[in-house]
Amino acid sequence: MTPRTSVDFLDADRVSVSDRGFTYGDGLFETVRVVHGRAPLWPRHAARLASGCGRLRIPPPDMAAVLGEVLRLSAGLDDAVARITLTRGAGARGYAPPPAPRPTLVVTVSPLTLDPSAGREGVAVRLCATRLAVQPLLAGMKHLNRLEQVMARGEWDDPAIAEGLMLDADGHLVSATAANLFVVFDGRLATPHVDRCGVAGVARAEVMAVRDVEQVRLNLGRLMAADEVFLTSAVRGILPVRVFATRSWQPGPVIRALQAHWRDIGLPSPASSKDSDR
Amino acid sequence: MTPRTSVDFLDADRVSVSDRGFTYGDGLFETVRVVHGRAPLWPRHAARLASGCGRLRIPPPDMAAVLGEVLRLSAGLDDAVARITLTRGAGARGYAPPPAPRPTLVVTVSPLTLDPSAGREGVAVRLCATRLAVQPLLAGMKHLNRLEQVMARGEWDDPAIAEGLMLDADGHLVSATAANLFVVFDGRLATPHVDRCGVAGVARAEVMAVRDVEQVRLNLGRLMAADEVFLTSAVRGILPVRVFATRSWQPGPVIRALQAHWRDIGLPSPASSKDSDR
Repeated sequence: MTPRTSVDFLDADRVSVSDRGFTYGDGLFETVRVVHGRAPLWPRHAARLASGCGRLRIPPPDMAAVLGEVLRLSAGLDDAVARITLTRGAGARGYAPPPAPRPTLVVTVSPLTLDPSAGREGVAVRLCATRLAVQPLLAGMKHLNRLEQVMARGEWDDPAIAEGLMLDADGHLVSATAANLFVVFDGRLATPHVDRCGVAGVARAEVMAVRDVEQVRLNLGRLMAADEVFLTSAVRGILPVRVFATRSWQPGPVIRALQAHWRDIGLPSPASSKDSDR
Repeated sequence: MTPRTSVDFLDADRVSVSDRGFTYGDGLFETVRVVHGRAPLWPRHAARLASGCGRLRIPPPDMAAVLGEVLRLSAGLDDAVARITLTRGAGARGYAPPPAPRPTLVVTVSPLTLDPSAGREGVAVRLCATRLAVQPLLAGMKHLNRLEQVMARGEWDDPAIAEGLMLDADGHLVSATAANLFVVFDGRLATPHVDRCGVAGVARAEVMAVRDVEQVRLNLGRLMAADEVFLTSAVRGILPVRVFATRSWQPGPVIRALQAHWRDIGLPSPASSKDSDR
C-alpha cells in the first residue's frame, strides 16, 4: 500500500520547492504509532512538537486538528505509523526566517509491520563511527536536520544489525540512530542526557514517567557492564539489546516489566500477540 | 517576477513529501550568480557539489547538464541567482539511505538586485549568539542541514545589519551566516579553517586561488586588530566589513584589488557599475 498523505489537511503528496523544510531542513517531525485508531503516546508527541516550535519560533499547529488528521489517515489500519512534518513554510531565498511564517504540515501514514522477534528476543546493535556534534541549541528536538543519522545508518546494511549506537564528540554514548538508549544496573535505570545532542524521545519520556530513571553521561565500558540494555522508540517500543560487540544479554525483568506497560497502554509488541500462537 | 523552477529538468515547482531533502535535509545545494548568461564561478560550484556527493554518497549529476539547466532558466536575465538543490531523492521511512538512490535535482532562478552601497562602502555586521557545532564529517559541505544558520540569522531583523559572524563551540570565528570571512594583516590574507564546521565557499576558494591566504583559527581579539575585514559570497562577491561592535574600517587596498578581480572575471558589483553615474 502506498502511504496516505496530506499537506495542510488536504490530500496531496507534494510540497513547494521553496518550502524551508526542503531548502534548509527548517522544521520538525514526529513519528507516531497508531494502533486500531488510537495513538497512546500522542500527548507526549504533541508536547515535544510544541516545545520544538517554541525553540525554533515556528507557530505551533492546532494539536487537536493534527491528531484528527493522523487518525483520519489511519482509519481502517490495525497498526500504523504516522509521520507528522511541520516546517516554517515557504520562504524567499536566504536563511532569515520570514517575519510571519505560514507553516506547512505534512502527515503521512503507512501500515506498520514490526519484526516479532525484536521485542521478544532482542536485537543486535553495532557502534557507529559517525559521532553526534554537540549543539545545545538543537539538542533534544526532533528537527529535520538529520544528516548525522543518515550517515550513521548508512554505515551498515547487514539486516541482522537492527541499530547503531552513537557517541558524541567527547566519546559519550547518546542514543541509537533512531531510538534512545537505556541501561539497568542492580535494578536501577539510567539513560544518557540529551541536552547537548540527541533526541528526547517520546518513548524515553514515557519510561521516565513510570520509572525512576537517572540521566547520566554513559561511556562504553559502563554499557558493557550493564545488567540489561534496551532501546526505546515511539514506533518500535521497548527493544532489548541482545548483542553488542563482544557482549550478549538476555532480556531481564526491567525490560519485561516495561514491555508489559507498553502493552497495557495499548501498544502491544508483535511478540506478545504472537506468543499465544506458539 | 516569480522564480523559474525545474525539478529533474522539467518545469515544475513541487517535490514529493517523501523526498529525503524534505524529510531529513539529506542533500546539498549551490547558489550560483549568473551574469548575462555566464556563471564565472561555475567550475568551483561543480567541484564542490561533486565533492559533497562523494562525501554523502549521493550519485553526482551530469554537471554539464546542470549548468545547461541553470543557463536555460536564466535566459534573458541580466543578473540572476540560481539555487541548485540535489537530494538523495525519494525514500521509504527511516534514515537508511536507499541502496540505489535516484537523486532529485531542483533548479530555481531569480533575478538578482544587489545593494550598490554594500560593495562600495561596506556592511555592518554583528556577532551571533548561535554557535556552530563542531562536526568534521559535515564541515565544508554546503548541505541542507541549515538550522544553525536559520537560528543565527533569526537573531536580528535590523536591515542596517547585513550579516552576523558566527563562532564555533570553542569560541573561534568561523564565518558569517551566509558568507566566509577574511582578515588582512600587513597585506597578508587569512581566513578561518572550515574543517570542523562552516562552509567552504566558492568565493572563498576563488580568493585562495588568486592570492596567498593562510587558513587560521581566528578569535575576536585578532579580528578587531585586522587592517581590513571582508566577507565573500558567490552571490554578493567581496563585501567589505565597515562596522563590527566598537570597530570600524574603510575598505583597503586588498579589498579593492579583489573587487577588481571579481569585475575582471565577469562578476561586477553594482558599486562599480554605478560609479560612472556618480
